[in-house]
Amino acid sequence: MQMTVLNKETSIIRQIAGDFVRHPHQVNRLLEADAEIIRLPGKRDEYLVLKVDGIHEEIKEKLYEDPYLIGWMTVTAPVSDIAAVGAVPSGILLSLTLSQHYNDEWLKQFKAGINDACKIYNLYVLGGDTNFDDLFSVSATVVAYIHSQPPLLRSGMMPGDFLYSTGPFGKGNAYAYSRFFDRSFNVNYQPVARLNESGLISKYATACIDTSDGLFPALSLLSEINEVGFCLDIPVLQLLSRESLNITQNAKIPEWLFLAGPHGEYELLFTIPEKNHNNFIQAYKNEKWNPVYVGKVTSDILVNFISGTIQIQCHPAIITNLFYEAGENVDAYFELLMQQHQNWTKQ
Amino acid sequence: MQMTVLNKETSIIRQIAGDFVRHPHQVNRLLEADAEIIRLPGKRDEYLVLKVDGIHEEIKEKLYEDPYLIGWMTVTAPVSDIAAVGAVPSGILLSLTLSQHYNDEWLKQFKAGINDACKIYNLYVLGGDTNFDDLFSVSATVVAYIHSQPPLLRSGMMPGDFLYSTGPFGKGNAYAYSRFFDRSFNVNYQPVARLNESGLISKYATACIDTSDGLFPALSLLSEINEVGFCLDIPVLQLLSRESLNITQNAKIPEWLFLAGPHGEYELLFTIPEKNHNNFIQAYKNEKWNPVYVGKVTSDILVNFISGTIQIQCHPAIITNLFYEAGENVDAYFELLMQQHQNWTKQ
Repeated sequence: MQMTVLNKETSIIRQIAGDFVRHPHQVNRLLEADAEIIRLPGKRDEYLVLKVDGIHEEIKEKLYEDPYLIGWMTVTAPVSDIAAVGAVPSGILLSLTLSQHYNDEWLKQFKAGINDACKIYNLYVLGGDTNFDDLFSVSATVVAYIHSQPPLLRSGMMPGDFLYSTGPFGKGNAYAYSRFFDRSFNVNYQPVARLNESGLISKYATACIDTSDGLFPALSLLSEINEVGFCLDIPVLQLLSRESLNITQNAKIPEWLFLAGPHGEYELLFTIPEKNHNNFIQAYKNEKWNPVYVGKVTSDILVNFISGTIQIQCHPAIITNLFYEAGENVDAYFELLMQQHQNWTKQ
Repeated sequence: MQMTVLNKETSIIRQIAGDFVRHPHQVNRLLEADAEIIRLPGKRDEYLVLKVDGIHEEIKEKLYEDPYLIGWMTVTAPVSDIAAVGAVPSGILLSLTLSQHYNDEWLKQFKAGINDACKIYNLYVLGGDTNFDDLFSVSATVVAYIHSQPPLLRSGMMPGDFLYSTGPFGKGNAYAYSRFFDRSFNVNYQPVARLNESGLISKYATACIDTSDGLFPALSLLSEINEVGFCLDIPVLQLLSRESLNITQNAKIPEWLFLAGPHGEYELLFTIPEKNHNNFIQAYKNEKWNPVYVGKVTSDILVNFISGTIQIQCHPAIITNLFYEAGENVDAYFELLMQQHQNWTKQ
């Protein structure tokens, strides 16, 4: 029997954005890519790529308080999406809401975070818009280009494809755990969007997404778009970042919780088809790079993984949806995750 | 003696955005254009144009409550800036903050406003980003192009140039007055960005700006950027929209208050040099269009105008700054405006 679990986030997006008419030159359908991709008229494989992304919940929940980190993430979050489609960013526009009585030192640190991120991604602040209100908020639009190759989408993977990542998982959630539950853990969180790796990936991959929301939410989206599932051949323990390992061991948090989201690590998650596999391995070895092998794409719409000593199999949307079922409340979410773990342990 | 009044809005913008490094292909300097203009590499007079604009204060102050109007203005505000630089819009990205418990009917009306505006401007929703918080807010990024001509900037006007507008002034403030002070006045406010007129204007004008913030704030900006002043040859009475005239006559509001901002009418305000003047007149007559002649650019950094029976001469930033001096409070602002009028009447 086919399970009919709906991914709650994508349901909301479809409801909000589903009935806008698409641009005739837009390549990607709704949800099909991390960014919006528009074919440049009269050109073959030349695309304008745009992404708007807001840092909102993270500030509201005080996950981000350091103005430098907020500035850094304002740039890094949309650039990570640009990297996921294989594009090269060029400029960024900022939409700011500042408190009427903003603090000069705070603003200076925020701008330093923006400037440093722009520098390492080789892009420029083109302009922006500033409003005033009680609470600070920011969103950014990145403009980018793809030259001489087709864009990388979230769609296109097939059962049997190999699932890879640019790095280990869990640092985003480890950071959130250290902020919300136990400040004795010190997690340095300042992810770098995987622009450098994106060029090589786009030559060999069938599909790609960034893990800005964590691994399981990314898998849930990929599953829905491609009508596939995933088998993680590598036990979760071996997929975790150093910081997540430290917390899982010392605070006795189940391993898979660090992959549950919603605060991710901004790695790229991508699939390599069998026919490209050897060339991909050769290419990353030539560049002295070492991506993380995660597992395989399956035709069953399920996620299989090993966390601790238990083998878990579930619908890809189950874990992601817990966050919405908890009303996006961090404490309630953590409780639902632990409850889910107990259910799986009992089985 | 040269007056040294600072425009408070531009001071804030310089402080916030002044030390970001500019893109090497960006044509406009800070404040020099209504939108950001980037030369496409290897092309002569081909530009990518971007504008981000948020509807924030208008919603917060309940100036806009109708979701259809909010949707309409979300698109119209940035498109008006695109028109001011002589570009043609192609697509729009939305950054939304919705209440967790958003109302379906409200959202439907908001989207109808967006869709209708997109239709008349011939542009498409490319994508967006949605966050959730207690209060609704929205900003939009428009992407546009300029083909085969230089962009129109706010800079470039010279003393002696003729000052024109695409239409009469004051409807934005008349609408605000009807909302905040006297609901017995019924003002239908749904401005259309002047895209159709923008093509002709960009052939003949030396500079252009939109009056999204009203006439005097636009003149204040133009004055600061071009180091010029303005003499309005036409009495304010003859520059006012029908709705503003009605209120000025029935509520005994001084005429010039409808030009003071900060809520404008989204006309284009532009300057025609003597050498283009006859050709410009011939061109608009051929198109059976009738722009509004306003006055002339002067070398003295002052604005001269006739309101009612009094001739007024002041620094261009004086009127604009009253809004900031009032702490952006509508009642306090109205009081400062009336006080300013009394001062001028006494002189």
